[in-house]
Amino acid sequence: MVETINGNTSLDEIVAFFKNLQDEICGGLEELDGKAKFQQDLWNRDGGGGGRTRLIQDGLVFEKGGVNFSHVHGKMPEKISKALKLPEEVEFHASGVSIVIHPSSPRVPIIHMNVRYFETSNGTHWFGGGIDLTPIYVIREDAVFFHEKMKAVCDKFDSNYYPEFKSWADRYFFLKHRNESRGIGGIFFDHLKADSPEMKTQNFEFVKSVGQAFLPVYEEIVNRHKDEAFGEREKDWQLLRRSRYVEFNLVWDRGTKFGLDTNGRTESILMSMPPLAKWVYNHQTEEGSQEAYTLSQLTAQDWLN
Amino acid sequence: MVETINGNTSLDEIVAFFKNLQDEICGGLEELDGKAKFQQDLWNRDGGGGGRTRLIQDGLVFEKGGVNFSHVHGKMPEKISKALKLPEEVEFHASGVSIVIHPSSPRVPIIHMNVRYFETSNGTHWFGGGIDLTPIYVIREDAVFFHEKMKAVCDKFDSNYYPEFKSWADRYFFLKHRNESRGIGGIFFDHLKADSPEMKTQNFEFVKSVGQAFLPVYEEIVNRHKDEAFGEREKDWQLLRRSRYVEFNLVWDRGTKFGLDTNGRTESILMSMPPLAKWVYNHQTEEGSQEAYTLSQLTAQDWLN
Repeated sequence: MVETINGNTSLDEIVAFFKNLQDEICGGLEELDGKAKFQQDLWNRDGGGGGRTRLIQDGLVFEKGGVNFSHVHGKMPEKISKALKLPEEVEFHASGVSIVIHPSSPRVPIIHMNVRYFETSNGTHWFGGGIDLTPIYVIREDAVFFHEKMKAVCDKFDSNYYPEFKSWADRYFFLKHRNESRGIGGIFFDHLKADSPEMKTQNFEFVKSVGQAFLPVYEEIVNRHKDEAFGEREKDWQLLRRSRYVEFNLVWDRGTKFGLDTNGRTESILMSMPPLAKWVYNHQTEEGSQEAYTLSQLTAQDWLN
Repeated sequence: MVETINGNTSLDEIVAFFKNLQDEICGGLEELDGKAKFQQDLWNRDGGGGGRTRLIQDGLVFEKGGVNFSHVHGKMPEKISKALKLPEEVEFHASGVSIVIHPSSPRVPIIHMNVRYFETSNGTHWFGGGIDLTPIYVIREDAVFFHEKMKAVCDKFDSNYYPEFKSWADRYFFLKHRNESRGIGGIFFDHLKADSPEMKTQNFEFVKSVGQAFLPVYEEIVNRHKDEAFGEREKDWQLLRRSRYVEFNLVWDRGTKFGLDTNGRTESILMSMPPLAKWVYNHQTEEGSQEAYTLSQLTAQDWLN
């Protein structure tokens, strides 16, 4: 039995939404792929709760993709209580959907999406989430389309959201050691709190909209490029760009590091790793090439002006 | 002009040893490979000093290997002064040789070696270092041979060194999120300080011995296995084991993280990355297989009894 805390929007309702979102997205991605089906692993967490880890692989479009739902709860792990300066006996619930998709074709971008909810027995709660796109080859029209959609989702709720959360994504999805953005960014937000039941409901509606934006936006981008030709050169560049994805997730991503450090389910956390990645010492792109253009675009920029 | 601090063993002498060690090891590895030659990149650090980054690749034996020398100095970076609780105006020198070798054949183990020296203008200094072996397929005879050699190096100086530094390696080269050792361990030591010039000289002699042990030990192991046959299955397992190597270096290795976080030379630091690595969700080994045996051996154990 889960408790209901903090106003009208209940934990049950939020968890049910996340489960349903996972189902919808898996269904949509299977249809988009046209061949591969998700396989599911159910898992339980020792301290309470568990998850549904779902993997799609070796498809016509998707080489490896994870769409994970989890709802864990129980006594707050000590590392978290300390980090959040909470009393030790506090109980928590954390739930969310987390996605990383690695397509086979270097013409189709990697995508990541996460929506999450966190609450404690002493009355705090917040939402967080984000979507960001990592093209192997940056194409301005796609980047503009993607950011327009992100802005539209945000603008329905608050005109400050897009500038704020877009800039948060630029700061978050950044490889400091490469001085490179992970891709063309997107939106990122965390600790979205409410001081009234109405505001909590509105925050939940925003998170719903972010989650529901994922499938139509990615479908459009996949369909634009999935049938484009590519050769060895493009495949090679994809393997190199994937190594940067690995570096971001293992060196800088707070969620990944936190999960690995607090005995999260390793196989679910590391589903974000690409199927294959390549490291070349001091790789240089050819001047004027599509690869060089891509690198030049991996920087925080205003795609909509 | 570099300063001489702390007794008889001068910084110049230590730096000269490290440079010479790099030369010797590169020469030995080229001979062992029989085809590939090291290419060198010289680099300078903004705050002072620089390095000689050397790469061997696409050889008969070595697919990708880095043998790096560096000597950096100047004003202590703020992150380090804070971590070491030193006054802010302190100057430092850091020098060392750092090696990671990825052979093409899954029959030949990955190896890592590092020897390093650090001193500050307010009178502290220490040595550090280590060697550890990461077989794709664990072979007990090799592990015993490797640990015997490590013990012999240590025992020449102090009978406590091998048990202490072997156990330090077991703790250090450990992937907590996989509950796996990186390989069969080796030795690891840090903050080896001296309170007399004689002791500093002796510590330097120990570090020299560790550095000089690398080549003969690795030559022996390479020669035992470099001509053994292997197929797709072994190559696939190698790519999987290499992904664990990536995970260790990017998630847990303090040197790598520290370098990336303090504007170290990224390309030199990440030469430790394998040329190609593979991630498979929830990979399972076949019962009774060589792969399953290897996994069962990736745990802290006393190889010499």
